This record gives sequence, structure tokens and C-alpha cells, in this order.
Amino acid sequence: MTDRPTTDRNAVLAANRAFYQAFTGRDFPAMDRLWASRLPVSCIHPGWTILFGREAVVSSWQDVLRSPRGPAVQARNERVSLYGDTAVVLCEEIVGDAVLVATNLFAREDGEWRLAHHQAGPVAEPASQILTPPDRLPPGGLLH
Amino acid sequence: MTDRPTTDRNAVLAANRAFYQAFTGRDFPAMDRLWASRLPVSCIHPGWTILFGREAVVSSWQDVLRSPRGPAVQARNERVSLYGDTAVVLCEEIVGDAVLVATNLFAREDGEWRLAHHQAGPVAEPASQILTPPDRLPPGGLLH
Repeated sequence: MTDRPTTDRNAVLAANRAFYQAFTGRDFPAMDRLWASRLPVSCIHPGWTILFGREAVVSSWQDVLRSPRGPAVQARNERVSLYGDTAVVLCEEIVGDAVLVATNLFAREDGEWRLAHHQAGPVAEPASQILTPPDRLPPGGLLH
Repeated sequence: MTDRPTTDRNAVLAANRAFYQAFTGRDFPAMDRLWASRLPVSCIHPGWTILFGREAVVSSWQDVLRSPRGPAVQARNERVSLYGDTAVVLCEEIVGDAVLVATNLFAREDGEWRLAHHQAGPVAEPASQILTPPDRLPPGGLLH
């Protein structure tokens, strides 16, 4: 007997792991394969503006993976939300001493879960110090 | 004759506008109604860690909308990507002098497009100066 949500959850988590493996391993062909071919594709790298379309997104990853300063990136606390044929993985990205948070949207294309959108952004404070967001803007200076 | 993608696109854009109207109008009941009831719900406010679950997310919005320092937020350059019963709106958020970029995930629930996930993060440089992201991390100091 198959349990569809569990199967999907595991497949999405595996795709998310493959994304971070390609990232840290600077494996551009693997990264290229992970992104959807026909569905809409977009990406927001931390601090950067929105990239639309497979060509712009994949080309940005080529630059990121080529960068000599590119750090290793480790994902932790992955959590999957399933919405039928799409799924979101939210996770923390450990990049050197910094923690980022990421939204990874996967969509089913030809029966496979492929990346459709990625946004990562900085966390301003250690999670343990965060109780409630008192304001829309992050703590002083982050935007300037 | 109905054009399903056009209808969906307009409905999603209307839901996205309603989100920013509730935000700027500090209309908590409207904000509350926009978020999905049964589907998974999550949110990443700029600089903050990941919030999971309707209660945590909606309660964070109550705090944001209550804040006396809460600025007006205007969305521009909205772009919709449709994935069947889910849709992503990517847009820029103008918050005072700052520009943020946002991922707004909508999912169809009881025939209505409702918010399922939101992530907003700062843009470090004016878009016109951005050619390619040379590194994973935003320009100096943003994370510290």
C-alpha cells in the first residue's frame, strides 16, 4: 500500500537535499537539472532582486557556483508543506557563521518534483531571541 | 467563454492587492480572512525566522498591524506564476525609502485563492546596479 503524502514528502525532501548538494558541491549540471523545464521559474537570491524565467535563474546559479568566494551551504530544519502538485520546503541555510531562511517551491513536472522558485534571506537575530515581530522592518540598519 | 488562466491570474492579483490593502490599512480582520484555513500556512517576515501554522502566522500579523511604527507598504511590479491550484505572486514592496522583495504563495481553498506562505526580504542594492549575483551572500555587512 502506498501512502501518497508520505511518498511525496520524501520525494520533495530528497529534491531539496539534491538542491543543497548541487549548491555546496558546485555541481552546475545537477543544479540545472533540478529546475523545472516548462513551468514558471523564478529566484530571489539574498539581497538581490527578483529573477524571472529559466534562463535568468539558471544563469544566476552558474555565476553563484562559479564564484571563488562561494561558501558551503548546509540546510537544516527542513519542513515540507504539500499543496497537491506543488510543495514548499522551508529551511534554514547555514552559510559560514550566518543563518539564512529559505523558501523552496517545488512543482511536479513529468512526475518529478522540480524547483520552481527559491527565495533566501538573512535572519537578523538568533531564533531564540525572537518572540514576536514588533515591526515590519528588521532591526536597525539591516536595510542601509 | 471563460479563459481559466486569465481568470485565475486576475483573481490571484486581486488577492495579492487585498493582502497589501489589509497590511497598509492595518485591517486585521481582513488579513485574518486572507490566510488559508485548512492548508499549511507559514510566513517569513524580513529578518525574522520561519513561522509555521495559522495561529503563529496570523498572530504575528496582529503584532505587525498593531505596531505604532508600522509603515505603509506598497506593492509594485507584481508578477503571477500559476501552478494549477497554487500560484506565486512575486513583487517589490515599497516600505518608506526601502525596497523589499516578496514571495506570496496562494492556494485554492473552497474555490478561493488564499494566502499560504509569505516571505519578504531586503534588496541590498538598487535593481539597476545588479547584473549578476557574484556570491551567495549579499554585499558586505548586511548579515552582521
